[in-house]
Amino acid sequence: MKDVEQAWTLIRHKVNQTPVVSDPDLDAELGCTLYCKCENLQRTGAFKFRGASHAIARLRQQGSDGDVATESSGNHGAALALAARLDGRQAHISMPRNSVPAKILSVRRNSGVIHFCEPDHQSRADGLAHLVGSGLIPVHPYDDDAIITGQGTAALELLSQVKDIDMLLAPIGGGGLISGMSVVAAATGIEIVGAEPEGAADAHASFEAGKRVESWRPDTIADGLRALIGDRTFMLIKKNVSRVLLISDEEIKQAMALFWRYIRLPIEPSSATVIAAIRRYPEYFRGKRVGAVITGGNIDAMDWATIIGDDQRSEGASREHDDND
Amino acid sequence: MKDVEQAWTLIRHKVNQTPVVSDPDLDAELGCTLYCKCENLQRTGAFKFRGASHAIARLRQQGSDGDVATESSGNHGAALALAARLDGRQAHISMPRNSVPAKILSVRRNSGVIHFCEPDHQSRADGLAHLVGSGLIPVHPYDDDAIITGQGTAALELLSQVKDIDMLLAPIGGGGLISGMSVVAAATGIEIVGAEPEGAADAHASFEAGKRVESWRPDTIADGLRALIGDRTFMLIKKNVSRVLLISDEEIKQAMALFWRYIRLPIEPSSATVIAAIRRYPEYFRGKRVGAVITGGNIDAMDWATIIGDDQRSEGASREHDDND
Repeated sequence: MKDVEQAWTLIRHKVNQTPVVSDPDLDAELGCTLYCKCENLQRTGAFKFRGASHAIARLRQQGSDGDVATESSGNHGAALALAARLDGRQAHISMPRNSVPAKILSVRRNSGVIHFCEPDHQSRADGLAHLVGSGLIPVHPYDDDAIITGQGTAALELLSQVKDIDMLLAPIGGGGLISGMSVVAAATGIEIVGAEPEGAADAHASFEAGKRVESWRPDTIADGLRALIGDRTFMLIKKNVSRVLLISDEEIKQAMALFWRYIRLPIEPSSATVIAAIRRYPEYFRGKRVGAVITGGNIDAMDWATIIGDDQRSEGASREHDDND
Repeated sequence: MKDVEQAWTLIRHKVNQTPVVSDPDLDAELGCTLYCKCENLQRTGAFKFRGASHAIARLRQQGSDGDVATESSGNHGAALALAARLDGRQAHISMPRNSVPAKILSVRRNSGVIHFCEPDHQSRADGLAHLVGSGLIPVHPYDDDAIITGQGTAALELLSQVKDIDMLLAPIGGGGLISGMSVVAAATGIEIVGAEPEGAADAHASFEAGKRVESWRPDTIADGLRALIGDRTFMLIKKNVSRVLLISDEEIKQAMALFWRYIRLPIEPSSATVIAAIRRYPEYFRGKRVGAVITGGNIDAMDWATIIGDDQRSEGASREHDDND
């Protein structure tokens, strides 16, 4: 917990204090009181800027000022690119060829150098190893203490903004966010639950087996959650997280539409997992004050609109069905 | 000012306290420090819920519990529908046939009854007169004291959230928002400026002529700003607003893309007028701390994505243009 507090001291003047939003009608639909910590409104559009800022701040403290390298589907890459740029460095990112164009654009806008690789775990890792071999400093996207404690500041900030939270909820990809948050949850005695897509359920499988599953071929719309859980992150999840809830891609899409309907924010599929989890497993959340991290908003506008449009059409938004007199 | 403070007391437990967001990179691009009051995250997706809640609260205070009627391109209609529903009444809305489907849907979701009319000022007014003739209580969308003071609470709340604001900025349609805010601006000695589309410049023309222009055929993408300025609202604007800045539809679209790029929020064209005004007239804002109301986010997802997509494509977001090694 002290680590997370120290991280917050180091980065709080650099990161946005993101708003917490809620809506009575959404609460009525979900059966709980939901506080959404809007990290989609964080700089570079995702909570990843917390961890990246912290990793760079720690390098600076250690007197290291070299360029950095990582592997990422986009959000951590863009976050590290900006954090590096603000500190006078450059970031190189090993990034899958099939990354979301909005995320490619975001890395470039923040002066990151992209090195495309094949869209599998090994190629991403090999790409990073190659960059590190050329002399760059590695900043792993999640299996890194500075990153984990940096992401944990989202929970500290949320608890400073809303009192009496009963439960925390976050998506699980590589596990950096939820493991950092779980340290805060454990220290404050608040239950913490994870949400993971069925198509990238390695954290769930690891959790059930009690040991880390080291291979998984991800197949999910939640592009930010395809990473494998890490050693450090799984150790914290195993210790602090009470359950990992699985949801389908279809439930994720419905949750994106629901979030737009009530909260008026476009969120990426990875973010919508938390809403989908509450809808699918209402029994765990009923009547509680739930703090959920909305992790990111980096989605291509047209992809997002296609998902939302399907929902609106099914509800009959057309001008034809009027109740005119 | 006392009227606005009283309105705030009446409605603050019903409306969302909307977040104020800002971004250092957007500030660098605009040349000022911009605080965006996100009324697009207000209930029903627009500031209109403030005025509507206040109008209904005042009716309740007066012992009146009948159903209400209004005319609206959508945002005021949805807001009045929800405010009425929460108070156990129903709202009937005279609404142009060409209203944005997302706004039609929003009215229906809040149990409002739509009465479609032709898309011109006279038909909207006639539609409302017909509804009032059938015994409904009129709640005019802007030329109404309760509505004006209700909208003004957005400025009070913004000033309570951010200190040392130098200037306030808001769009002008019928003028309800800016006139309510101008009362707060005048009482606190803060300059207030309006933004209006060139294709619906009746407030600008009225401002220049010193008297209300009573006819204008609107032609602008900003569907929420096509209304004619009202008698009450023009009187306050003339007295308190320092200038009305005109912007083109193309500038509005660019501002929508810019807002998505830096703030990660989809906003409707009417809302983007304030960003467009700062870009077109930087000399009025340079170096200042500007508080701008982002008025609403009710736009069809696909229409919005089309505008944003054009911007992203022009910047080269494709996977082909990589800087691969």
